[in-house]
Amino acid sequence: MPDEVLDDISHRRYNPLTGSWLLVSPHRTKRPWQGQQEAPSKNELPEYDPKCYLCPGNKRAEGDSNPKYSGTFAFVNDYSAVREEQQEYTLEETGDDVASLLLKAQPVTGKCYVLTFSPKHHLTLADMAPEEILPVIETWTRIYASHLSPSHPLCEQAKQALASIPTTPDAEVTPPKHQLRYMQIFENKGAAMGCSNPHPHCQIWTTSTMPEEPGKELVQMAKYRKEHGRHLLEDYATLEVKKQERVVWQNDSFVVVCPWWAVWPFEVLIIAKRHVRALVEFTEKERFQFAEAIQEVTRRYDNLFETNFPYSSGIHQAPLDSNEEEAEASWFHMHFYPPLLRSATVRKFLVGYELMAEPQRDITPEQAAARLRGCSGPLYRVTLN
Amino acid sequence: MPDEVLDDISHRRYNPLTGSWLLVSPHRTKRPWQGQQEAPSKNELPEYDPKCYLCPGNKRAEGDSNPKYSGTFAFVNDYSAVREEQQEYTLEETGDDVASLLLKAQPVTGKCYVLTFSPKHHLTLADMAPEEILPVIETWTRIYASHLSPSHPLCEQAKQALASIPTTPDAEVTPPKHQLRYMQIFENKGAAMGCSNPHPHCQIWTTSTMPEEPGKELVQMAKYRKEHGRHLLEDYATLEVKKQERVVWQNDSFVVVCPWWAVWPFEVLIIAKRHVRALVEFTEKERFQFAEAIQEVTRRYDNLFETNFPYSSGIHQAPLDSNEEEAEASWFHMHFYPPLLRSATVRKFLVGYELMAEPQRDITPEQAAARLRGCSGPLYRVTLN
Ligand SMILES: O=P(O)(O)O[C@H]1O[C@H](CO)[C@@H](O)[C@H](O)[C@H]1O
Ligand SMILES: O=P(O)(O)O[C@H]1O[C@H](CO)[C@@H](O)[C@H](O)[C@H]1O
Repeated sequence: MPDEVLDDISHRRYNPLTGSWLLVSPHRTKRPWQGQQEAPSKNELPEYDPKCYLCPGNKRAEGDSNPKYSGTFAFVNDYSAVREEQQEYTLEETGDDVASLLLKAQPVTGKCYVLTFSPKHHLTLADMAPEEILPVIETWTRIYASHLSPSHPLCEQAKQALASIPTTPDAEVTPPKHQLRYMQIFENKGAAMGCSNPHPHCQIWTTSTMPEEPGKELVQMAKYRKEHGRHLLEDYATLEVKKQERVVWQNDSFVVVCPWWAVWPFEVLIIAKRHVRALVEFTEKERFQFAEAIQEVTRRYDNLFETNFPYSSGIHQAPLDSNEEEAEASWFHMHFYPPLLRSATVRKFLVGYELMAEPQRDITPEQAAARLRGCSGPLYRVTLN
Repeated sequence: MPDEVLDDISHRRYNPLTGSWLLVSPHRTKRPWQGQQEAPSKNELPEYDPKCYLCPGNKRAEGDSNPKYSGTFAFVNDYSAVREEQQEYTLEETGDDVASLLLKAQPVTGKCYVLTFSPKHHLTLADMAPEEILPVIETWTRIYASHLSPSHPLCEQAKQALASIPTTPDAEVTPPKHQLRYMQIFENKGAAMGCSNPHPHCQIWTTSTMPEEPGKELVQMAKYRKEHGRHLLEDYATLEVKKQERVVWQNDSFVVVCPWWAVWPFEVLIIAKRHVRALVEFTEKERFQFAEAIQEVTRRYDNLFETNFPYSSGIHQAPLDSNEEEAEASWFHMHFYPPLLRSATVRKFLVGYELMAEPQRDITPEQAAARLRGCSGPLYRVTLN
């Protein structure tokens, strides 16, 4: 423990990646819970579900049919949050000062993809071996590369990456009509995290604007680099590997930690050990080791409470359209935000105080990391692959 | 409409109170929903529940008995997130530079209260008349006043407020042992918002540190004031009253709007029309009109989908320990963050993209305000008072 007293007292911790604080109350787990219970996941899904709009060969909501894909499959979301073409919008210049100060808007265009991880309806990343997760990472890399600005500092790397990746035939991926700014790859897993279809998949929302969270992180990382001459996540990964207090697992290329500033009970961060700015910079070995890291996180999650563990995860990397300096400040990492706190049915709610005042957590990240280190065994359930 | 095109296109809106952006995708409500459904609230609660730890005369988890209270009742939370006394913690000076940069912590002390709104187990604020909500506001005022720093610019106002408020005998409220910095009053209502007991109550968490959200707002409000010579929320309330596009309801003292920058589908902001810095500055008339505003919001919420509408709400006002300038920048307001989107059972999940990238909403605040304006009738259910 960094300071054992932090295991017992209320304190705040600082998140240097976003520049914000959170409240930690380690003694608070003792309180009884009479509130909402999550349904424990049943996991009795069929390998193919004729009603699933993601299974191979099936019809989707808007009438398109999926190919009979055998690996991953990517398509443009039928209900995209942003679209490539829309009516023009220019801010009305009313001369009304207060309105232009307080009613600010800007148009956003973009492209949203859905990407399935496997044709098999009943699998999750936790059920898949690193070899089976690898094609997902390859498809992410391909999609990222095909949306990269032609003047991006990573263009050469993107070309090389594409050359070293087997083609994925079942991806309706085309370069964007207008250059976009940022690509957010994320997965919502489980009904508790707003996922409406258990078929293993993630989403990729690509926008003409820089979203808040990765934007804040880039500013903080660039600032740290300017002040200290080193990368924030380089220093942090090295420090954690040295301390071994919050490390869950590591291989040559990645370290998995419950970060010092974790908000969600079993929040995890996968950090690249060397300076990789985006997916396209991974070597073949690193792509495989990233698949291993994802496997370790998702399997341990499921083992922890012997349930299909819900979470939202997301990758932060260099923007699609970036100058040298911003791309240089980027450091590849992946966040996992899982809501469960005490068991398969009792979650942590980030509600009143958390929304109005400040995020608050009950167990310390050191306790969470120790629990996850202890869940290394084989997946608790047998996967009928 | 400010600009009708915003009803159809994806755009971002700016929240001047926190200085951040959110994504609005108005066309996205059309997507089908096959995910988690909330249980519609049943509302068949008894007026008194022998197993409720908040009902008058009952035993609480840690053995204390509640008084046979007839109005509001306040006590120190048996499972407080922060406590008045705890072990000392001083940052270890290891000379290890990186650790002190990246593993920052600070101790937090404080006091957490639970406050019941009524002795009746089956009521909610929506069931209560403004006359019945008034004692809640009076107790908030009393608790705020008893925690105010003796050198606070609002001390005189606090004395006058206390003199004009009937005493509430059933409040275990004592001045804090050490001066605290901020008092966050909030309510979590409904199982969907992590509330574990339907007995009508709120919580009051008081801390030695300034929490993130009201801290950000104070900085933004002070900045606006410096730059424009007027208060941000003064300008905003005036603008909304003039435009009438997002106004849900108003009386002499308050305006209720779905703010331009709302994240939650039916998010609402109650704004004081004159410069009131904290609860203790309200006149008797204003206290009553604040009760009316709360009644209007909660009743309309319940009417909207004919259900016991879940939400988290919270009051932002001047810190307990404040210099002249900071107190002056404060402008009393109350946020309501309700999760329901389309019906009593379909909520909006703020998950993957929202957590990793940027908050995203589906209907516009103008559409939400129009819906809430249309829900003005009597409470859809009969309340057996
Ligand atoms: O204190 P309660 O009502 O048991 O707990 C609820 O509100 C708290 C403050 O928003 C949250 O930290 C908890 O996660 C939530 O379940
Ligand atoms: O697109 P889906 O999976 O239907 O929707 C889910 O993820 C989105 C992105 O995080 C959220 O905006 C939705 O609220 C959630 O239900």
